[in-house]
Amino acid sequence: MSILITGVAGFVGCNLASELIAKGHVVFGVDNLCRGRREHLASVIDHPRFAFVEVDMADLPAYRAAFQAFHAREPITEVWHMAANSDIPAGVHDANVDLRDTFMTTFNTLELMKAANVPVMAFASSSAIYGDLGCPLVEDIGPLLPISNYGAMKLASEAAISAACESHLERAFIFRFPNVIGVPATHGVMLDFVRKLAATPRRLDVLGNGTQQKGYLHVEELIDAMLFIRGNADEKVALFNIGAGDEGVTVRFIAEETVRECSPQAQIAYGEGNKGWVGDVPRFVYSIDKLRALGWKPTLGSAQAVQKAVRQIVAQEALK
Amino acid sequence: MSILITGVAGFVGCNLASELIAKGHVVFGVDNLCRGRREHLASVIDHPRFAFVEVDMADLPAYRAAFQAFHAREPITEVWHMAANSDIPAGVHDANVDLRDTFMTTFNTLELMKAANVPVMAFASSSAIYGDLGCPLVEDIGPLLPISNYGAMKLASEAAISAACESHLERAFIFRFPNVIGVPATHGVMLDFVRKLAATPRRLDVLGNGTQQKGYLHVEELIDAMLFIRGNADEKVALFNIGAGDEGVTVRFIAEETVRECSPQAQIAYGEGNKGWVGDVPRFVYSIDKLRALGWKPTLGSAQAVQKAVRQIVAQEALK
Repeated sequence: MSILITGVAGFVGCNLASELIAKGHVVFGVDNLCRGRREHLASVIDHPRFAFVEVDMADLPAYRAAFQAFHAREPITEVWHMAANSDIPAGVHDANVDLRDTFMTTFNTLELMKAANVPVMAFASSSAIYGDLGCPLVEDIGPLLPISNYGAMKLASEAAISAACESHLERAFIFRFPNVIGVPATHGVMLDFVRKLAATPRRLDVLGNGTQQKGYLHVEELIDAMLFIRGNADEKVALFNIGAGDEGVTVRFIAEETVRECSPQAQIAYGEGNKGWVGDVPRFVYSIDKLRALGWKPTLGSAQAVQKAVRQIVAQEALK
Repeated sequence: MSILITGVAGFVGCNLASELIAKGHVVFGVDNLCRGRREHLASVIDHPRFAFVEVDMADLPAYRAAFQAFHAREPITEVWHMAANSDIPAGVHDANVDLRDTFMTTFNTLELMKAANVPVMAFASSSAIYGDLGCPLVEDIGPLLPISNYGAMKLASEAAISAACESHLERAFIFRFPNVIGVPATHGVMLDFVRKLAATPRRLDVLGNGTQQKGYLHVEELIDAMLFIRGNADEKVALFNIGAGDEGVTVRFIAEETVRECSPQAQIAYGEGNKGWVGDVPRFVYSIDKLRALGWKPTLGSAQAVQKAVRQIVAQEALK
């Protein structure tokens, strides 16, 4: 297959590119390199079955030119749309950030797929589309009332993809991501903690009281799950929560693991409240029963995924 | 209160304006007059508590100027956002139509409300956000997989409003409209039938086989329901289906009623299939149990609403 990955230089995109190339596919990638980084592509950039163009997908004429050039080289059979704003607080502060980088990237991709008759879209959605429902998050629950513009524009993207499946798309795969961890880490609580401890090895300040609890999935498992769904689901719009399937771990656990790994003498100082910032959902149970029923299950729980990622992030930062 | 109605010259907007003025409120209105019509405002345009500006809400600087001028005259306390593309097939053909007129009108309205600290949004959403679920449509069901860009951009709007309630809005009222009928009719199956019969009084061609069944609510009842929810719901994001609460009537019933009312000698010729066009949901049960529990119920069923609307539309067309 010939697959376009959007946001290919981001955390998930670059891992996905490596995996799809290893499986023998032709992989094209686009990224505006605002949050993604060229060095994330180091392991694939010279591969004969990989090509990359730096382009801002919000700039439709430029994006169209890149898309058409790839399509002329090898007709694109599917698009894995991973590009999005990954800075949730930035989108809460200014809704235009997620409008542009989380929603219009989807909208423009669908327009180009329609024009080029590319039949299959796989999309990185998010648990943030559910909002703060206060009950287990399963795929058939509603109403969907996201509390961040990031979640809102992921839901808007799902909706646009769903409508496209009624007109020009043959199939879509919508993956509702959990908190995904691993390397290359570009943001997130673990990287923050590692960097804070590098700056002040004897003290770690934590936003919130540390009781905030979330599930975490390692990026390697996320990719395995996405490919499993791609290969096994048979719905026209195949929509799945992906996650560790457990109750998750607290911020306190992550802080303690990070301290243990890279600065055992540090004191941890907690703030107040169990919300880190506006748009952050304090605690939820994220059901993966539908994905389990399809036949996939994670090999790591949230705690093990955190431990693995902390080690990897410490190693990543040590190399800088 | 001082209320801005967007899409004020449209079918619902102009009826809402009359009602809110009658209740003693100051009413400001905007409309780009693409689908709305100036003559729909005839009964309110000279009222001292009404003011209208023709502006395209997709043009943010122009919309901002109109919004700020109203706000300076009498601080806006809430916005009733009724503006949207109402031509669903046009949006299926070109996704940009609903992006611009159904979603960006919402996005821009939220931006202006944020800047001016207007705390309350009431929004005309749609049963189209549910897609073709094949089971009774209740507010807490999912996944939401709209099959038209209209439905997709209504869902995108709900999502953006929900996120805004976590940052700058105090409250939002999301009304999921059913098929709404009455006058002034600008589009829809009844107006189509009346006009077809005016052109060919002995024959009525019906798209589809006539078995397509939907619930219909009269616009007067819709407005009554919205004001009831506005006055009685206490959720921060109050989201309600509004409808007739019955199983609806078939296209065949509407065709027969229209023929009986305006051209009894006409033969009705049906097409094939039970979908009229891409994006049209063939049949669904639209639950209003949540609204009933709040204390509102319709006085007309779908059949009576259709009969009333057909009579009104025949009278409307006769005046032209």
